[in-house]
Amino acid sequence: MDLGKTGARVRACGPDGVREGEGPGVVGLAAADGVRQVMAALRGALEGLDVGRVDVLAMGLVGYHAASARREALAEALLTEHADVVLLTGDVTTTYVGAIGDRPGVVVAAGTGAVALGADATGRTVVRDGWGFLLGDDGSGYAVGRAGLRAALEHRDGRGGSAALERAATERFGELVGLPAAVHSAAHPSQLIASFATDVARAAQDGDEVARQIWADAAAALARTARACREALDPGLPVCLAGGLAQVGALLAQPFAAAVGGEVLRAAGTSLDGAEALARQAWSGAVSPVVADQVSVVRACGSGLEGAVAEEGGADGLGVPWPRRVGKGRR
Amino acid sequence: MDLGKTGARVRACGPDGVREGEGPGVVGLAAADGVRQVMAALRGALEGLDVGRVDVLAMGLVGYHAASARREALAEALLTEHADVVLLTGDVTTTYVGAIGDRPGVVVAAGTGAVALGADATGRTVVRDGWGFLLGDDGSGYAVGRAGLRAALEHRDGRGGSAALERAATERFGELVGLPAAVHSAAHPSQLIASFATDVARAAQDGDEVARQIWADAAAALARTARACREALDPGLPVCLAGGLAQVGALLAQPFAAAVGGEVLRAAGTSLDGAEALARQAWSGAVSPVVADQVSVVRACGSGLEGAVAEEGGADGLGVPWPRRVGKGRR
Repeated sequence: MDLGKTGARVRACGPDGVREGEGPGVVGLAAADGVRQVMAALRGALEGLDVGRVDVLAMGLVGYHAASARREALAEALLTEHADVVLLTGDVTTTYVGAIGDRPGVVVAAGTGAVALGADATGRTVVRDGWGFLLGDDGSGYAVGRAGLRAALEHRDGRGGSAALERAATERFGELVGLPAAVHSAAHPSQLIASFATDVARAAQDGDEVARQIWADAAAALARTARACREALDPGLPVCLAGGLAQVGALLAQPFAAAVGGEVLRAAGTSLDGAEALARQAWSGAVSPVVADQVSVVRACGSGLEGAVAEEGGADGLGVPWPRRVGKGRR
Repeated sequence: MDLGKTGARVRACGPDGVREGEGPGVVGLAAADGVRQVMAALRGALEGLDVGRVDVLAMGLVGYHAASARREALAEALLTEHADVVLLTGDVTTTYVGAIGDRPGVVVAAGTGAVALGADATGRTVVRDGWGFLLGDDGSGYAVGRAGLRAALEHRDGRGGSAALERAATERFGELVGLPAAVHSAAHPSQLIASFATDVARAAQDGDEVARQIWADAAAALARTARACREALDPGLPVCLAGGLAQVGALLAQPFAAAVGGEVLRAAGTSLDGAEALARQAWSGAVSPVVADQVSVVRACGSGLEGAVAEEGGADGLGVPWPRRVGKGRR
């Protein structure tokens, strides 16, 4: 399962073949009712798929790094309802594995939020940004959407901004004087704001200079986050830009590649591919050493949850059976 | 009454003298349950003051400009519970009247949020910014606090930032890895973030360059909002920086004065002084023509609310009796 702010996606693999489902996303495990949110999102994405209890559930989820205190409760709930073995990690880890597999490098996962995971050949990992839309997520879809809406309101105010973005925002949201109320009373303001990133992309492709600059700023911010991972581990690591925002294409990819320098990789697969790969690794008994430091594996022992335990990974990877406790995924 | 995001203040003037009370603020009238919020804040601020029904209630409130659809409902609720005549306006108007009275000019009200009101000698008014913390409020306490916390997290991430602000943030909020969860699950994230502005001020006063730049950026943003008012009305209007953020002093006032240019006035009084002045004007029968365009006055007719009506102001000011309908306070 891949669980982000914008949506949840599951892929069920078994003897009957592969089925996929999707549903709404969540604010994140770090939200006050994070465990309940995650469980509801899983049920929503599984709806209609006729998937019963599974052997292994691998889940990459937003807010994982900020919510270490809630991981154990989530693992126990998942073991009770869904699977015999649960692998938990941040959505940036599933994005990493989907994008570049078990190769050392830096993967920037840019969607509604933005976070980067770096991993070197010795099993060391670092996470940068992912601080959420109010304090970080620099260069994210939220940041692009917010900058676009600000430019729309600035133009309306006669404080500069962009006429093209004011038109686009009015088309999408109606008379702009009502926009703050709509945004501040939305169930998920960050998603509403991030939804405007596609309009900013269209305006940029149509030649609007303010919109182009917003994308250039986003690329520079994402490159800065990637470079911080490199600097903490190994300046020679290759970098890959992945996640939903990367789908905007050259508008983001070109200035990102120019700003980040060094080797830039193309993402080979999605975060859902990464979650599947991690589930298969957990099933086979060993999680790749490159990201093992970011992963918790918990399994039910006997009939109850008393023995719910987790293996901690390290430089030699992560052997699944008989682990100790939940709580991995350090920044 | 002055009702902002950070707090509510009331001043009751009568034959028994003057009493003041205060209580928690509100997200704003534009929030989904804005009317309920405002009514609760008024009751909270009045608690213990032993103030019964009053002749005139003048209220400057945050979110007023974004919530024209809710003004009538609020006026009716206030007429039912608290007063025979209700004057409603934005908190920027009470700040304006408290700061420079009925003189034409531009007043920037900077607190947790930021908004500017310009008024010329002919009765024309304009409002700029005040778009709320997610989309605007450039140069506000929220913007300063957010920039300070971002600099703290950036430093922790090895992405630049400020060591002094990282120390200050850790002192105030504890281990920073938990900060996003604390902020995103707070009842009022914008207030929590704005509370860090005082730490940013202290760091700047202690010579931290990043903190100084944050205040310089805030001053430039507030000056830009003020200039937008001038440009829409009259480039020669004097400008005044008022509101809670202005209390930080020279750190903000000096770069603001330099960036805004022209005549800069000192605020003569507070927004609560402005609310009192407006209440007295409504009681005397005529609201000052300078801000009349931003003010709604509603009075109960007879015994019921059926006749609740409001006068619309204009170039000749606002005569209180037998008005027409609510809905004033245009951008």
